[in-house]
Amino acid sequence: MSNSSELHFLRDKLRLFAKVRNWDQFHTPKNLSMALMVEVAELMEHFQWLTALESENLTVEKKQEIADELADILLYLVRISDKLNVELLPTALSKMEKNALKYPEQQVFGSAKKYNEY
Amino acid sequence: MSNSSELHFLRDKLRLFAKVRNWDQFHTPKNLSMALMVEVAELMEHFQWLTALESENLTVEKKQEIADELADILLYLVRISDKLNVELLPTALSKMEKNALKYPEQQVFGSAKKYNEY
Amino acid sequence: MSNSSELHFLRDKLRLFAKVRNWDQFHTPKNLSMALMVEVAELMEHFQWLTALESENLTVEKKQEIADELADILLYLVRISDKLNVELLPTALSKMEKNALKYPEQQVFGSAKKYNEY
Amino acid sequence: MSNSSELHFLRDKLRLFAKVRNWDQFHTPKNLSMALMVEVAELMEHFQWLTALESENLTVEKKQEIADELADILLYLVRISDKLNVELLPTALSKMEKNALKYPEQQVFGSAKKYNEY
Repeated sequence: MSNSSELHFLRDKLRLFAKVRNWDQFHTPKNLSMALMVEVAELMEHFQWLTALESENLTVEKKQEIADELADILLYLVRISDKLNVELLPTALSKMEKNALKYPEQQVFGSAKKYNEY
Repeated sequence: MSNSSELHFLRDKLRLFAKVRNWDQFHTPKNLSMALMVEVAELMEHFQWLTALESENLTVEKKQEIADELADILLYLVRISDKLNVELLPTALSKMEKNALKYPEQQVFGSAKKYNEY
Repeated sequence: MSNSSELHFLRDKLRLFAKVRNWDQFHTPKNLSMALMVEVAELMEHFQWLTALESENLTVEKKQEIADELADILLYLVRISDKLNVELLPTALSKMEKNALKYPEQQVFGSAKKYNEY
Repeated sequence: MSNSSELHFLRDKLRLFAKVRNWDQFHTPKNLSMALMVEVAELMEHFQWLTALESENLTVEKKQEIADELADILLYLVRISDKLNVELLPTALSKMEKNALKYPEQQVFGSAKKYNEY
């Protein structure tokens, strides 16, 4: 693996994974957004009846199941980004800068309101 | 930024982002799974009425909006993984190996059935 | 069953169902919104790799599975509405009137744009 | 409105609403499942940073916004069920009977485990 980019490494592995299975025909952005959503719902299902506190104190077995869901989410996210020619890392860094402007520290300190509710 | 890990770099930036806003109190795994879901829905909304073909031929403006949604998804995914002490990259690589066993190339070639439907 | 309201009939059955299982403690609006989402994801999963045409031509077996998901969605929707003291039917009728104003027939004829994109 | 069925009444209104806008072409089961999901995410967004207690004590203004989301969910649910020829009410009643068997009162009393975790 090249040190320079984990996300490109995953992207390339996923390209090959789909290619040898002839799955590109299914991997439209529309379908991949649905598949990504389904994985996030599988993650969320683990938390639906838990209190906030319980969601922070999971058994080792639950943790492993949840880690696998997080992995699936990353894989679909990298895949759909590839299909849309979006470079995830620079886009995420630039989005963090936008978010910092939308949520100035002093103004939002300790508050979970949405930026348009201030 | 260390070349060795983009995901750790993002993780550390997000830790600081939350800390200076006193947002850790809101960032339980349960809440973050919900926030992640909401971002994926915002992504999916762009595709809901499009044909598969249209979803592959977006305007530059739509592309930028969609790239921003993908970025938000990555940011929440890195954040919830941090809160759960999950190392995303090795977990994703090991999940890809499990997926390869679940979906052997010859058996699934050109088919989108679920692994338990073969 | 009273003819006057199917939705009240379901609401009352669900109240009893939760009560005899001592489940009210879990049925906060927050948790129920998550459970509702998980059911909708299970519905959507059936369609994720299908073409639009395939999604209109399902096997009898698939249809039955999907009907069960639709039922679960209605049950959680009625339950969360009850917990929030929302009367679903009049609210839905009044929302349809708002939607009619947002999407005037002539203006939106044959177009799937969002109301703020006209 | 016929007293005998609120859900049929809504179904018929929604059929007409789509017809006069020439929207049937967009209303495939696949697309409608996505639209339904997006509405549920809009509902869930209201709750994502709230504690369970806060989610039970909403302002009048928030309540109204949430009621509108619940209405949209019902409308899309009735619409997709119509497109799939599923009769929501009897299906929901029969699903409640299945759920009662899956979750016997004594066994699940006060517990939120999934049926396959007992």
